Amino acid sequence: MSEMIKLTSNSLPLTKKGEKTRQHLLNIAEEVFGVKGYFNASIVDITQKANVAQGTFYNYFPSKQSIFEELVRNMSHTFRSEIRNAIKTASNFEESQRIGFRTFFSWVKNHRNLYSIVQQTVLVDEQLYRWYYERLASGYIKGLEEAIGKEEIKKYDSETIAYCLMGISQFLGMRWIYWEDKNVPDDLLEDAISLIFQGLSK
Amino acid sequence: MSEMIKLTSNSLPLTKKGEKTRQHLLNIAEEVFGVKGYFNASIVDITQKANVAQGTFYNYFPSKQSIFEELVRNMSHTFRSEIRNAIKTASNFEESQRIGFRTFFSWVKNHRNLYSIVQQTVLVDEQLYRWYYERLASGYIKGLEEAIGKEEIKKYDSETIAYCLMGISQFLGMRWIYWEDKNVPDDLLEDAISLIFQGLSK
Repeated sequence: MSEMIKLTSNSLPLTKKGEKTRQHLLNIAEEVFGVKGYFNASIVDITQKANVAQGTFYNYFPSKQSIFEELVRNMSHTFRSEIRNAIKTASNFEESQRIGFRTFFSWVKNHRNLYSIVQQTVLVDEQLYRWYYERLASGYIKGLEEAIGKEEIKKYDSETIAYCLMGISQFLGMRWIYWEDKNVPDDLLEDAISLIFQGLSK
Repeated sequence: MSEMIKLTSNSLPLTKKGEKTRQHLLNIAEEVFGVKGYFNASIVDITQKANVAQGTFYNYFPSKQSIFEELVRNMSHTFRSEIRNAIKTASNFEESQRIGFRTFFSWVKNHRNLYSIVQQTVLVDEQLYRWYYERLASGYIKGLEEAIGKEEIKKYDSETIAYCLMGISQFLGMRWIYWEDKNVPDDLLEDAISLIFQGLSK
């Protein structure tokens, strides 16, 4: 998969200004693909909204598909790295998971188009769709394995539990943030966390 | 939502032969939309594969969007009714959930395109996308409320737990059935069920 990323990402080193333009195009693409959808959106929709010349676009991305794919990877990297940083201070697994859920939800609250964009990926690039969830799973698995090693939680199959936690997080975010543009209410999040940690306890 | 269904579904009574043709078109649409995707698929793709005249198609569905929407509703009704029937014999909540998961997984194993079709719905008709999950949730909520009433499980917010269970079920099905065309392995399903029921226990 890392090879694919190399092939479709822009591999030229960018100036500071170039990096800024590239990120600006990605931010606009997030809005355009999220609202209009990949199949109805055009490169012109992106460049007009970004106030960038059509020719400039191609300095950064060879095609509509390439900017879409880079956007999915970019969003994935960004929120996973925010979660990794946020949970550094956690003193145990339960605390790290609670912080992880909250960090993800507050990131998604500012990037609600993530939901529609990830679901669209099933049609645009099925391999990338799988990559998105597998990368997310790998972070969960690492945390779960550590907690199992420290005997903080029951010895379940860590990949299975990772998919359970990802499912819970995606569905609560969908219900509250994507559909209603609200935060996941604290007491409801605590119900989910209690379900999980009572379920994981030894 | 029921009004929308009335408006877009074919409301003429069909002969037995007509009902058969309509179901045949839906079965073919399931394959075509699942494999080619809504935006790349045409009505001709469906009629050719179904060996049905173009004009005949319009006796049943006014447009590509209408057959897609009817397909989503049809799949949803079909597997939810299979699950309802299958869990009738269950003697307690845990048994009904285990049977429910298994019935859903074995249905999806024969209808793997469900995954892609539901995800595409986010672009085709966002209201229908939400309807799909809300209808699914209502079945879970009913079962959870009953089990809470009988004091079989802890008193959590039933809608929140419903979304947790739906997330778990969708993600395990995605991991094993949609991506790998395998059954969810029994021992892994038991890990998920143990997480859930230890989590739900009083």
